[in-house]
Amino acid sequence: MEDVQSRLDGRGVALDEVGVTGLRYPIVVLDRARGQQHTVAQIAMSVNLPHQFKGTHMSRFLEVLNEHRGEVTMNTLPAILQSVQDRLQAESARIEVAFPYFLEREAPVTAARALMGYSCAFVGRRYGGRNDFMLRVETPITTLCPCSKAISDYGAHNQRGYVTIDIKGQTDEKGEHRLIWIEELIEIAERSASAPVYPLLKRPDERHVTMQAFDNPVFVEDVVRNVAIELQAETRISWFRIHARNDESIHNHSVFAQLEGSPSTEEQRPTVDVSATAAAIR
Amino acid sequence: MEDVQSRLDGRGVALDEVGVTGLRYPIVVLDRARGQQHTVAQIAMSVNLPHQFKGTHMSRFLEVLNEHRGEVTMNTLPAILQSVQDRLQAESARIEVAFPYFLEREAPVTAARALMGYSCAFVGRRYGGRNDFMLRVETPITTLCPCSKAISDYGAHNQRGYVTIDIKGQTDEKGEHRLIWIEELIEIAERSASAPVYPLLKRPDERHVTMQAFDNPVFVEDVVRNVAIELQAETRISWFRIHARNDESIHNHSVFAQLEGSPSTEEQRPTVDVSATAAAIR
Amino acid sequence: MEDVQSRLDGRGVALDEVGVTGLRYPIVVLDRARGQQHTVAQIAMSVNLPHQFKGTHMSRFLEVLNEHRGEVTMNTLPAILQSVQDRLQAESARIEVAFPYFLEREAPVTAARALMGYSCAFVGRRYGGRNDFMLRVETPITTLCPCSKAISDYGAHNQRGYVTIDIKGQTDEKGEHRLIWIEELIEIAERSASAPVYPLLKRPDERHVTMQAFDNPVFVEDVVRNVAIELQAETRISWFRIHARNDESIHNHSVFAQLEGSPSTEEQRPTVDVSATAAAIR
Amino acid sequence: MEDVQSRLDGRGVALDEVGVTGLRYPIVVLDRARGQQHTVAQIAMSVNLPHQFKGTHMSRFLEVLNEHRGEVTMNTLPAILQSVQDRLQAESARIEVAFPYFLEREAPVTAARALMGYSCAFVGRRYGGRNDFMLRVETPITTLCPCSKAISDYGAHNQRGYVTIDIKGQTDEKGEHRLIWIEELIEIAERSASAPVYPLLKRPDERHVTMQAFDNPVFVEDVVRNVAIELQAETRISWFRIHARNDESIHNHSVFAQLEGSPSTEEQRPTVDVSATAAAIR
Repeated sequence: MEDVQSRLDGRGVALDEVGVTGLRYPIVVLDRARGQQHTVAQIAMSVNLPHQFKGTHMSRFLEVLNEHRGEVTMNTLPAILQSVQDRLQAESARIEVAFPYFLEREAPVTAARALMGYSCAFVGRRYGGRNDFMLRVETPITTLCPCSKAISDYGAHNQRGYVTIDIKGQTDEKGEHRLIWIEELIEIAERSASAPVYPLLKRPDERHVTMQAFDNPVFVEDVVRNVAIELQAETRISWFRIHARNDESIHNHSVFAQLEGSPSTEEQRPTVDVSATAAAIR
Repeated sequence: MEDVQSRLDGRGVALDEVGVTGLRYPIVVLDRARGQQHTVAQIAMSVNLPHQFKGTHMSRFLEVLNEHRGEVTMNTLPAILQSVQDRLQAESARIEVAFPYFLEREAPVTAARALMGYSCAFVGRRYGGRNDFMLRVETPITTLCPCSKAISDYGAHNQRGYVTIDIKGQTDEKGEHRLIWIEELIEIAERSASAPVYPLLKRPDERHVTMQAFDNPVFVEDVVRNVAIELQAETRISWFRIHARNDESIHNHSVFAQLEGSPSTEEQRPTVDVSATAAAIR
Repeated sequence: MEDVQSRLDGRGVALDEVGVTGLRYPIVVLDRARGQQHTVAQIAMSVNLPHQFKGTHMSRFLEVLNEHRGEVTMNTLPAILQSVQDRLQAESARIEVAFPYFLEREAPVTAARALMGYSCAFVGRRYGGRNDFMLRVETPITTLCPCSKAISDYGAHNQRGYVTIDIKGQTDEKGEHRLIWIEELIEIAERSASAPVYPLLKRPDERHVTMQAFDNPVFVEDVVRNVAIELQAETRISWFRIHARNDESIHNHSVFAQLEGSPSTEEQRPTVDVSATAAAIR
Repeated sequence: MEDVQSRLDGRGVALDEVGVTGLRYPIVVLDRARGQQHTVAQIAMSVNLPHQFKGTHMSRFLEVLNEHRGEVTMNTLPAILQSVQDRLQAESARIEVAFPYFLEREAPVTAARALMGYSCAFVGRRYGGRNDFMLRVETPITTLCPCSKAISDYGAHNQRGYVTIDIKGQTDEKGEHRLIWIEELIEIAERSASAPVYPLLKRPDERHVTMQAFDNPVFVEDVVRNVAIELQAETRISWFRIHARNDESIHNHSVFAQLEGSPSTEEQRPTVDVSATAAAIR
């Protein structure tokens, strides 16, 4: 049976990425408190394609994923990427794994407990023998408007917001990552807000977070700066991007602030990030 | 060229609905202030299919839509539905038209003006010679929690919420609808909230809405009841469903309340509405 | 601390549903092959609210969910609903649980195995002592157009489609459900299509499904009728709704067919289903 | 009334972007055939924020948008960006405008006409006195699998796919853009596919496109390469990114290929594009 994908291609156009996307798959990730956690991921996997080959063999991505089934962590990603690289004879391999991560949260006064989900993602890339790893954690927060509080005789508008922190860790020759825990990034995001968001609050807890938020008003700009100051001092990472968004309670649109930087440098160049456009279009 | 759709079918199964969906189309709707308004709709059109026919002719939905192009209003829907009925020789025809509707809103103190979009939908149905018409309007609002205000020494959590009002109007023999304006339903929804949501607010306006919300705390239950009292007294409608949702600022989930009823009767039976599931699944 | 929700309300408006929605939660469901399966759900829970009470106690939904944590199956739903009813002193309680369900599928020729996810949902309702249960299963399929095949000299357009089957089972006094397995509904949906959809296909498998689809052309109308004939003969259910959608490969919109009915009766009345509108609006 | 945003900030953290997002707004864009076209956009606007200021004045974005209301084209963007820059005293300003663009398409045999919508976006950026402009056009296409055709005795699986072309044009001192029309990018995308996708096809047209697709099988890799060859020869642009995705009819996931490059150079470096993750998470 002919292998059409292996036909030679004469157009002389090498491709950056060829792969599968929109793949829903159950995975197991590391959990600081419980060792591991079952969740469900949206996965994309790709490799580069040299100019001389007509196509790649898409089914092999599924085969590799199936062999490593269950285990998709910062420690197993390098092995998965290497399997993809070998199986598809590629110079570069890339995987994105987006998933909800659940933590049991305790209410601040009554200590009532329930699970809350956080949208997270791993983006791993292997180029030659080098591994590159990005972790994304989105943390919901409460933000209370400093301007509204300052100019009003009483009250202050507040709303649900989301802080998305992307970080890249350092990797050694063996591709081992010494990474920040998802839990740590959630804590940094919550410390930067007016108050955390909880899955379950009884009245004494609601009273507590209401006053906590009123006592700690922050603009979306403040949230990003508060996170930035902590990440700029963080030696375990090589790069970060911080995005905060408030779903304004007085408007039907949102406001946002964003910063890309690294611990080693203060440089903060404006970036054209098309991801928002992409999300808006899709 | 054979007309496969017209083949006879022996399975004896008549279908409730057969049609097109997910169709994006530019339309013109009635605008109380400006006469008419250009917007973009998501459209679904369908007919019933008698058991003896294998299939319907889907391209005809597009032909009808194209002939009536531009004009999709509560006044033209009956003609569109009749065209569909005739062209596809169907007993029943149905059309759903979901679209953003824009109003110029004035800030409460500075009178600064800007446009705000409201998600609306028409659902028209024709069965034999009878027309049935539903209007849906979703209005964003601000809600301030009465419990949070009552139990806290200062402040109160508030958030963006959405009130969705579905109504059915009365139709006469000629299929003419004497309907409530979209603008009227938006006003009812905003009167039922802690404060309206605006596209553009300067500081004096922000101060105003902050204190207005603090002075008018409402639960999601209150919002639905406030709307219900106005609709129960409304003689131009025959049926209503009210759904209010708060995107809680202290939680990462939402709370909602719902009521289905009619002006002529007080009966409020619990309904199993699978639309939320449908939305969740998709 | 005052219990504002328990204040008396004088508006005389009872509410059909009051509750939480958009709640993401990890659950365990029954798995015919493996006993049970970990997945992640989107959950909505609600109760009715008598006219004399101002509000319900939303945090109790989370408490109930947390107590039954993990176990959300057709067998545990009645207990969850009764807990909600008791805890919130409600006459009716309702829960929606939408989740991806994973099955290991075997390629038709090479028997290569990988997991595939199916969007499913439970909708349970308890009114007084009576339980009502709905199961929803969405199965992706391949459909090849009979018209395109008949009128073309070679080839035929085909595309990915989705069959959504909703069923209600019979419940006895103890609220026990004798239900069809998710796996059974997937098999019915796939038998009704031109060919099943697989997570992993090698070339001999791709050859097989290509010819299988070409040998079994079906319109979206055929898919619904094929499913209907099987469900009309199914004694374990009391009601069904079948919705099939083709994401047309020659158009940028979709076509659909829908039928609501029951084994005991042939009656197929046209229904006004606003769920598509709801999905379009959101 | 205090201007809290203008307070000095001592954290020494300058922000890349601060602004509004998720703003729905009716706009008018240029239309090659009809001069101009009304549509509805999703808009994001932002500026940089120097380290010494606490916040930006978000309401001014709405004021600028309102002043330029209606006219959002590649010709007016520089003026809008300059207004934003001036009004907010910023060094850099950015705007994203994502919108459906409608074209009347003619069926290939019967010449039946109907409108089809294409998802497009403008991304404009002004840094100091320099303007940067990106155009994004997503074109739905039909792709027929070369492998499936080659290995099967008859038939071949085909599906709906999407080609997304991003390009950057050259700008002169006055910020004038000499840009490719949206219509031109759609034509390039359709020439690169097995067959175009149409809004309305009668049977003779369906026969035509069925055989056209069978005669022109392409992998997703072929689509990107076909587009790349045309864009590499295009002198009006300075940069491009091509992304093609097939919503596989034999799988429940998609396959994609991507290439970033420019006419002036052959370099095609692998890029880590997080937009897919972003979309997956949201």
